[in-house]
Amino acid sequence: MKRTELVNNIFEKRSFLCVGLDTDIKKIPAHLLEGAEHPVLAFNKAIIDATAPFCVAYKPNLAFYEYLPEGHQILAETVKYIREKYPDQFIIADAKRGDIGNTAKLYARAVFETLDFDACTLAPYMGEDSVRPFLDYEGKWSIILALTSNPSSKDFEMVRDSKGTPLYERVVRRSAHWGNPTNTMYVVGATQSEHFDAIRAVAPRHFLLVPGVGAQGGSLEEVAAHGLIDECGLLVNSSRAIIYASDGEDFAEAAGKAAKEVRDQMAELLVKYLSK
Amino acid sequence: MKRTELVNNIFEKRSFLCVGLDTDIKKIPAHLLEGAEHPVLAFNKAIIDATAPFCVAYKPNLAFYEYLPEGHQILAETVKYIREKYPDQFIIADAKRGDIGNTAKLYARAVFETLDFDACTLAPYMGEDSVRPFLDYEGKWSIILALTSNPSSKDFEMVRDSKGTPLYERVVRRSAHWGNPTNTMYVVGATQSEHFDAIRAVAPRHFLLVPGVGAQGGSLEEVAAHGLIDECGLLVNSSRAIIYASDGEDFAEAAGKAAKEVRDQMAELLVKYLSK
Repeated sequence: MKRTELVNNIFEKRSFLCVGLDTDIKKIPAHLLEGAEHPVLAFNKAIIDATAPFCVAYKPNLAFYEYLPEGHQILAETVKYIREKYPDQFIIADAKRGDIGNTAKLYARAVFETLDFDACTLAPYMGEDSVRPFLDYEGKWSIILALTSNPSSKDFEMVRDSKGTPLYERVVRRSAHWGNPTNTMYVVGATQSEHFDAIRAVAPRHFLLVPGVGAQGGSLEEVAAHGLIDECGLLVNSSRAIIYASDGEDFAEAAGKAAKEVRDQMAELLVKYLSK
Repeated sequence: MKRTELVNNIFEKRSFLCVGLDTDIKKIPAHLLEGAEHPVLAFNKAIIDATAPFCVAYKPNLAFYEYLPEGHQILAETVKYIREKYPDQFIIADAKRGDIGNTAKLYARAVFETLDFDACTLAPYMGEDSVRPFLDYEGKWSIILALTSNPSSKDFEMVRDSKGTPLYERVVRRSAHWGNPTNTMYVVGATQSEHFDAIRAVAPRHFLLVPGVGAQGGSLEEVAAHGLIDECGLLVNSSRAIIYASDGEDFAEAAGKAAKEVRDQMAELLVKYLSK
């Protein structure tokens, strides 16, 4: 998907919400466990149908699928379902891959060809040649980890070099030149809003994929205040707070309602900060 | 597998060779493409049978399986084949995973339970909580990326902090306290032998998993000179130089011969540096 298309979708829907399809089979409502379809796939389809009007992107985290023996099939069918029924949705493989060049090429093939995702999250530790093969795909996106939402992000991401630049800032600075704002985004945790200004200083036009709102405690208002740019430039992810809004037979309805509430707040923030 | 068992296997076989099962369907001998079994699985089994006497570990890189629609099944069957026929082999998932705690837990479950690997390679960028769930498995191993063999390892891994410590050294220093030498190893590329002494200074007892000998140009002699310790402490990986030693009908025989040659060199190095 092209940047212009993503930006148009955001302003049409007045939403920059990404719904995280981190579907845990243990949290699926009981009545789905008896259907003909695999419960995880049935759950995903119902969540997608209920939330699609209020979001612009979906992000399955691959870990939630890889431990299930039938997980890869479910993941493939989930992507196919979104692609066919909601072709305007941006689909992100939250895979955090990273390997040497010839191997990264195969990971890129797995997520962009075998599975037809629009984007893939990538771990930058190994440097440019671990990201390059993903950037070589026309119309696809690399979403590089910059500053993550977890407590131990301080272990290495925050470490300052001899000039006082933290590692996450160096990652953004360098990798901004590998690609450009039409094929590269950065992961920045919502719990790190005091660092958004530093990231915007080095990546003023890039989209930021922001997890950590909701269950992890980040504030949407803070993220918008420090992260929004003219073309929005934000995809804010919410997983648990939406997909597990209810554990009863009304789970999909409740997820739709939760997504709509976030969308309504996003619509207000777009007006407040961008006058759109 | 316990450390004592791994060490015993090494000295019994006089080998610290790990064979990388990075099986590329495009490089498989033509005659295997027509069999009843999937050619990648048939290739792996033949390579394993031919090399098992000369190595102590196998390391499939998951990227080589994930892009194939039937890749996960082939991977599972490859692990099962090694586990049942050669129970003394140490089996490494080269997956380079890394995610926040609750997600890392599922990746650990995928590689250690669903697939029954002994060890998994991990990217340290996100810090301790991305590694912790892997360390919680009794008898399993975390193999953390320290200094990789690729050219762009200099982008971030080599960056020095205000005290002059490069990032890779900080990764080893800190993570050495998360686990211990009986459940943690480090990836150090064979092309980085000038840095082995720095790593040995902070991780004197840890095993190092060393890719990059052979096709990538690292020297086994150099690696042994700087990396060997009393209990060996090295697993040196070779993939392409062994598994593609011939592309004819004699591919397995040629792989066995190539593995034996490396083993013979390793046996000499064990004598030279450890008098064993």
